[in-house]
Amino acid sequence: MLNFDNASTTKISKLALETYNKASENFYNPSALYGAALEVKKQIEGARAFFVRYFKGKPNSTFIFTGSATESNNAVLYSNITRKDKKYLISAGEHSSVYEAAKHFKELGYNVVFVPLNKNGGVNMAALERELDESVVFVSVIHVSNETGAINDINAITNLVKGYNKNIIVHSDGVQAVGKLEINLKDLGVDYYTISAHKINGPKGIGALYIAEPNKFKPLIFGGGQEMGLRSGTENLPAILAFKTALEHVKLTDFSAHKQAILSALSADYICVSDEQCASNIISLCFKGVQGETIEHILENEGYLIGTGSACNSKAKQNRVISQLVPKDYVEGAVRLSFGPEISVEDCFNLGRALNEAVKLYREKTKR
Amino acid sequence: MLNFDNASTTKISKLALETYNKASENFYNPSALYGAALEVKKQIEGARAFFVRYFKGKPNSTFIFTGSATESNNAVLYSNITRKDKKYLISAGEHSSVYEAAKHFKELGYNVVFVPLNKNGGVNMAALERELDESVVFVSVIHVSNETGAINDINAITNLVKGYNKNIIVHSDGVQAVGKLEINLKDLGVDYYTISAHKINGPKGIGALYIAEPNKFKPLIFGGGQEMGLRSGTENLPAILAFKTALEHVKLTDFSAHKQAILSALSADYICVSDEQCASNIISLCFKGVQGETIEHILENEGYLIGTGSACNSKAKQNRVISQLVPKDYVEGAVRLSFGPEISVEDCFNLGRALNEAVKLYREKTKR
Repeated sequence: MLNFDNASTTKISKLALETYNKASENFYNPSALYGAALEVKKQIEGARAFFVRYFKGKPNSTFIFTGSATESNNAVLYSNITRKDKKYLISAGEHSSVYEAAKHFKELGYNVVFVPLNKNGGVNMAALERELDESVVFVSVIHVSNETGAINDINAITNLVKGYNKNIIVHSDGVQAVGKLEINLKDLGVDYYTISAHKINGPKGIGALYIAEPNKFKPLIFGGGQEMGLRSGTENLPAILAFKTALEHVKLTDFSAHKQAILSALSADYICVSDEQCASNIISLCFKGVQGETIEHILENEGYLIGTGSACNSKAKQNRVISQLVPKDYVEGAVRLSFGPEISVEDCFNLGRALNEAVKLYREKTKR
Repeated sequence: MLNFDNASTTKISKLALETYNKASENFYNPSALYGAALEVKKQIEGARAFFVRYFKGKPNSTFIFTGSATESNNAVLYSNITRKDKKYLISAGEHSSVYEAAKHFKELGYNVVFVPLNKNGGVNMAALERELDESVVFVSVIHVSNETGAINDINAITNLVKGYNKNIIVHSDGVQAVGKLEINLKDLGVDYYTISAHKINGPKGIGALYIAEPNKFKPLIFGGGQEMGLRSGTENLPAILAFKTALEHVKLTDFSAHKQAILSALSADYICVSDEQCASNIISLCFKGVQGETIEHILENEGYLIGTGSACNSKAKQNRVISQLVPKDYVEGAVRLSFGPEISVEDCFNLGRALNEAVKLYREKTKR
C-alpha cells in the first residue's frame, strides 16, 4: 500500500522507537529524590532545552510536554478564554482541537468570533483586521492548514495584532508546519505554539506546547506539579525522548513536483484548493458531484491510501473547512493527498491517473 | 539497586514493551476510512471492551483512554464541579491530581469540602456522613491511598452516599488499587473510576477512566471527537494495547510477610501509619525528629531506593497526607516503602536493618 495520508499520522521511525525502548529502561519517577530519578529529570530538562533551541524560542520561554497536540491546543484556550467581556478571534480554518474547544467556550457564552478564510483555506487578513477592537485579548491562527496546506503568515499576523495592541495573546497551532517549514518562534512572535510528535514519525500520545511567558499560563491539568507546575502527570520519558529523536531527523522536503505530477494526470472536473501559498506536502482536491469516501475505497483497492478531508475529525458529516472554500456540489468530493519521504513523483503520477479513473467510474455508475 | 519505590512508578514489562513495538507497526489513524485504519479502530474497541470486562463495569458503561490518570482525575472534576450552589466532598487523602484540581475549583469559589482522615490515611466515614446534605452532588474518595496504602471501603461509601441521595455522583481514584485488590466496578457502585498503566508495569503516558453513564460525562478535551466524543486526540494504539498487556499479567500478591519483616527489624522510635486496613504493598513509616530525605540518601548508598512521601508531588515541601496523621515531629521523617515482585522477604529484613541503622546514624550525628 502506498500511503498518501501522511498528514493524518505517520509511522514511528526506527530511530524514534529505539529511543523509546532504550529510555524505557530508565523508568524511575523524576519526582523522586534518588540518583536514578534525578537522571530522568535531567534527561527531560535536556529535551526541553533542545526544543527551545530547535524552535528558537524567546529567552525565558519554555516548552511543556503534553499528552497530545489536542491537549496543548485545549490548554491554551482554557488558559486564555476566561472573561465574558472580552473577545476571542479564532480562524475558521483551525484544526478541530482548537475549533471545537472554541465552540465549547462560545456555547458557554464567551464572545468567540470565527474569522473567515481565503479560497485556499488560509485566514483572511482583512477580515482579521476588521475584527480587531479594544475588547480583543486572544487570537488563534493555525500555521499550516491540516486540510489544504495553506500557510498562514504568522509573522504578519503577530505584527498586525500586536501592532494594534501589544497585549493581545497570539497562539498558533504548528502541528502541520513542523518538518514542512523552518520555524523560528522568536521571529514568529507568538505567545503559544503547538506541536505534535506523531506527524513527524515520532510516537503517538505526546505533544508539546511552546509558552513564551510561562508565568502567564494557567494550567489545565492539576496535580503533582510536574512540568514546572504547568502540566501535572508523571513524565513520559520514553515518548519525550523519542519525540526529540523524531525532531532531530526531520528533513524539510519540497513536494512541488509530486503535486504537479498529480495535477498533470487529472482531467475530470475538479477544484484544487491547495495553491502556491500552500505547503507542498498536502494537496486538497474537490471533485464535482462525487463521494470522496467512495473514491477512497476504489483507490484503496488499487493500493493507495488517501484521506477524505481531515481524519482528525471522526464525527464530521461534512468537511467544515472545505465547505467554506468550494461550491456545495464539490464538498462531498473532497480528497486530501499528503506525501511522505517514501512517495516518489512517479507514484504521484500513477495515483493521479488512478484518481482520474476512479472519478470517471463513479460518474458513469451514478449516471445510470 | 533494590527498588522499594514501586508505588511511585514501575518499569514497563518486556511483554508490554513488545506489544508497544508490535502495535507501532499498525500506525494508521483510526479516524481514517481505509481498511488499515479500521483495523486500528477495531483493536482499540477490543481493548476498551476488555477493560470493561476485566473491571466488571455496569452494562452501558465504558472506559475512555487518556494521557494519564492525572488527566482522568482532572476530567472527572471538571465534568462534575460546575455549580456554585452545590457541595463537593473530596477526601483529604486524595492523590494530588484530585486534591490540587479540587483546590483549584475551591479557589474559583466552588463549595469544595475536604473530608478528614482516620489515623491510617483512610477517609473518616463518620465525617463523610456528617457532611452529607441536600446540596451535595459529588464525592471523590481514593480507593487505596498512595501514601499509606489505606483501603477505603468504596462499596460502603457508595452505599452511604447513594443511600442518602441516589443522584450523588461518586468517583474513586483506583490507581493504587489495580493489581492490589480484586476490583468489581458494578459492586463498588461508583460512577467514575481512574486507573493508570505505569503503576502496573505498563507504559507511561496512558491512563483510563471508567464512566458508568457516558451520556452524563462532559469532556475536558475537545477536538476530533475520538473516544466516542468524550476525549479528543489521535488514539495512542501502542500504549493502549501495552496497557492491556500489563493488565493481563497483573498478579495480586500478598506482601504482608514483607511488611512484617521490615517492622521486625526496626527498633528506633517510629510510627507505622500503615495498619491492617492497608494494602500490603505499601508501608509508610514516620521516624521522630529525622529527615526522610537524608535517610533516603543514606539508603541509596547502600543499594536501596525508597520513597519519601509521594513522589507524585514534586513541589510539596511537607507531606500533605502524612502531616494529617502523625504528630508534627514525625512528619519530616516519613518514608514510604512499596514492594514489587522482585523484592523478597529477606530483602525487606535487610532493608529494615539498614533503615534502623540509618535512623540511628542520623540521630547520633544531629545530637552533636
